[in-house]
This record gives sequence, C-alpha cells and structure tokens, in this order.
Amino acid sequence: MPASFSARLRELQSRNDTAVCVGLDPVPSRLPAPLQDGRLAADAVRAFCAAIVEATAPYACAFKPNFAFFEALGPAGLTVLDQVLSTVPDDHLVIGDAKRGDIGHSARFYARSLYDDLGVDACTVSPYLGRDSVAPFLEHEGTCTFVLTRTSNEGAADLQEACACDGTPLYRHVAQKTGKWARGGEGEMGLVVGATAPDALSELRADAPTLPFLVPGVGAQGGDPAAVMDAAATDEGPVLVNSSRSILYASGGADYAEAAATAAKDLRDALTA
Amino acid sequence: MPASFSARLRELQSRNDTAVCVGLDPVPSRLPAPLQDGRLAADAVRAFCAAIVEATAPYACAFKPNFAFFEALGPAGLTVLDQVLSTVPDDHLVIGDAKRGDIGHSARFYARSLYDDLGVDACTVSPYLGRDSVAPFLEHEGTCTFVLTRTSNEGAADLQEACACDGTPLYRHVAQKTGKWARGGEGEMGLVVGATAPDALSELRADAPTLPFLVPGVGAQGGDPAAVMDAAATDEGPVLVNSSRSILYASGGADYAEAAATAAKDLRDALTA
Repeated sequence: MPASFSARLRELQSRNDTAVCVGLDPVPSRLPAPLQDGRLAADAVRAFCAAIVEATAPYACAFKPNFAFFEALGPAGLTVLDQVLSTVPDDHLVIGDAKRGDIGHSARFYARSLYDDLGVDACTVSPYLGRDSVAPFLEHEGTCTFVLTRTSNEGAADLQEACACDGTPLYRHVAQKTGKWARGGEGEMGLVVGATAPDALSELRADAPTLPFLVPGVGAQGGDPAAVMDAAATDEGPVLVNSSRSILYASGGADYAEAAATAAKDLRDALTA
Repeated sequence: MPASFSARLRELQSRNDTAVCVGLDPVPSRLPAPLQDGRLAADAVRAFCAAIVEATAPYACAFKPNFAFFEALGPAGLTVLDQVLSTVPDDHLVIGDAKRGDIGHSARFYARSLYDDLGVDACTVSPYLGRDSVAPFLEHEGTCTFVLTRTSNEGAADLQEACACDGTPLYRHVAQKTGKWARGGEGEMGLVVGATAPDALSELRADAPTLPFLVPGVGAQGGDPAAVMDAAATDEGPVLVNSSRSILYASGGADYAEAAATAAKDLRDALTA
C-alpha cells in the first residue's frame, strides 16, 4: 500500500524544510526572448518549464501545472505537460490543477485521465456538483483531491461568501462537506483556500483541522506568506503555498531560471520565518 | 458581425423543428464490437462519433462533446475531438462541454482554447469562482457560455439546493447572477438545468425569461422530455435538450448508427409533441 499523500507531504516538508509549491502557468508571450526565438510555442514552453522545475526543485516540495495554459497550446498541450512532468524529481509531488467538476459518470473519466494516465499525485476539483462529482477521484489510492473552497479572486464574493447553508457561509459549508466526503475513500481530500483571505484561512483550519490546504494567491495576487502560515499551518494540518507568476517571470530575461530559484528560495524563507 | 448564438439556434430549431442536442460521451469499452475490433481506442472513438453525427444530424440542432471522454483517450484525445467536430454539418451548433472554472487569468486561456482553437459555438462553465471566472468567455462574439446552475445529479442537493443567498436558493442565485453577468459581453450566456428537476426548470425560466437553457438528464438519467418543454420552452427562451447515452448506445450492435438515428428521432418527436 502506497504512503498517503499527507504522509509523503509531511516527510518531504520536514526533510527539505519548505512549504513551497511552484505553479506552472506558462504563457508563451511572456517567455524570455531567448526561448521564444524561432521555436514553436510548445517547444518553448517545454524548455521553459523544465528549466523552472530544475532550478526551483531545491526550494519546493511540489509543482502545480495549471491545465489552462497547456490546453491553450492546442492538441500538443497535454504531451508537453507529460514531458514536463517527467522532469519533476521523484520525491516531489505533482498537483494537476485542472479544476474539473462533472457528474459521476464523467468525473470517473477525468479522474482516470489525471491519476492513471498523467500520474499526478493530487488534483483540484470544483464542489458545485456535490458529492457524486468528487467521489470517483477518491478511488485512487495515495492521492489527494483538493476541493475549491474559498478562492483567491474577487469573484469569491459572488457565491462563496454571498450564500450560506443554515447560517454557515458556502465556503465553510464546502469545507465541512469535504471532511465528510473524505471519509471512507482510498484517496485523501484537501481544500484550496486563497492567501488573499487570511480570516477565511483561520476559519477553515478550525473547520478542517487535519485536511491538507493548497494555498494560492501569494505573490502576484498579493497574499502575505507569513499570514498564511500563521492562519493555517498546524502540526496536524499541512499547508502547500503556491506561487506561479512571481516565480516564473521573476526576471523575464535570459537569467530567468536563476531568478526563479531566488524567488522560490525567498518564498521558502518567508514561509519558514 | 456574426449572428448571435440565440438567433442561430432559433433559426435552426424552427427550420428543422427540433430541440435535440446529441451528447458525444464515447466510452471505448461500450463501443460496438465491429468498431473495437483490432483498432486503437482513439480510432474507434473517431469512427464511432463521426457515424453518430452523420446518422443523427437530421434530427438534431446541436452536438455536445463532453471533454472527459476525449481527454481520457490520452494526448491524442483533443485531436480526435477536433477531427470529430470537422464532421459536424455547418448549420449545426457545437457545445464544448468542458465545465471549466478558474480565476480570470487562467479562464482567458480556457476560453481561447475552446472558442478560438477548437471553434465551438458554446461551452459550459462552473459558476463557483464568480464573475471574473466567466467574464473572459464573454469576449468571444457570437458564442454562448452555459453556466452550471441546477445539475441533473443527486449531488445537486449538496450545495445548489442546500445553500441560499438572502432566502434565494443557490441555483436561483446563480441564474440571477448569470443574467447580470451576461449584460455587456459580446457573447451570450445560458443556463445548464437538469431535466430531473422540472420544478427547478420552471423557477429558473421565471428568473431568466430569455436565456437559452441547455437541459441534460433525459434518457439514461430519467428526465421526461415533455415535462422539460412544458416547464422551460417559451417563445423568448430557447431550450436545447441533450441526450447522450440513450442515443449513443441505443443498440450496442453493428446497427448502432441506425439505432442512434431512431433514438434521436424519437426524442425529437417527444419534444415537439
């Protein structure tokens, strides 16, 4: 039986003393000029992401490719993603940030594609369709399915904060439901909670003391790394803090890999301070 | 300026007297034996879907490929989808059922992939991340972005029905928000509402008198076609009724295409009765 996702995450975080997850959101037009020169976008993205993975791995415990940016490469996109994932060191975790959410019959195929074909360790899903839309993801042993709970964007106010169930805001209702849905599955579940709302992070940690949290929104989106750790990191509840743009495009020049490594190291230090 | 999605849908529905949308959810293990014989899954799926499109086109006004089933074919999946879409007659609409939902920066890339690269006429999105997650889809003229509102599965009870905003159930809140979000975009918006909840269909038609509705859940999921039309089809508010499995796998044998045509014709007749 493989170790659980949480056990692997804890071991890795303690060995490397880092909670950093590097988000892979490659935008062809933002790649450094030397990479763009005369290459197809797919080739440039592959080279860019592989260099970012190599440079930042010492300071990170996970990588999170966002599928939007790979799918935008056209039919070659998932092949590029697969090739990039093959460069991730074995002891680092991969979170497939696909935010899928469909009825059970279809969700089963999304789960297979992510966990069996691409071989990611975790992925992100939407809770809007309820329990039967996430259940198929839990059939994959050793994985962790992160449910969008309180996201880092302005639109979080539209549904997540505006609606409630018996007085409990929707985002906390999702956290409580996720805790129930997680029981009995072979795979674990976690929550996606934006760094831009530290109060929500504290509330959700109280609602879900042991679930792993995936926290985007530091860096370009403005969340404060130290506030995230204060609000959400506990001995029982591990936290992965994701940064994408401020690592990937730290310099924008030929020294992009060194600049990314420095940005990842700085984030690691800010999180462990 | 291209005609709006609604205008094209109305024209097509009135010309062909049909509200049928054929869902393309190809499951390799369920394909008829003659197609599976010695072929790669991707080749079998391509041949199967092309035959279904050709056989059912006279009775349908739209086709709705569900991305879960194409992505499950591996890296070749989106190429297969592209090839299948090239067989759809020009005067039929294509709804990319991808149920994407991500923050604006990422949503922009999903929208481009669907509307610019694959060239679908409409797609499905999740509302959970709010306005800025759907806004980039509205930048594509002549399209329609269908928002998951009240889905056809059991899990619809977990959030959509259990939560509310100032006394309005979440699914109706989504419909009302969608009506607001739709204003000012170049593309239109519509609602995805399951056939399994006819009362919700009536309520949502009252909330959104002019938005197009995409209604899955007849056939294998048990929704009643006549009840759908009674509840939701009006002169101002067009309805597309989707059926997937009960058309695709109507016979399961060598006569699968003829059987699919008969099932599509029967659904058309039940909807126009």
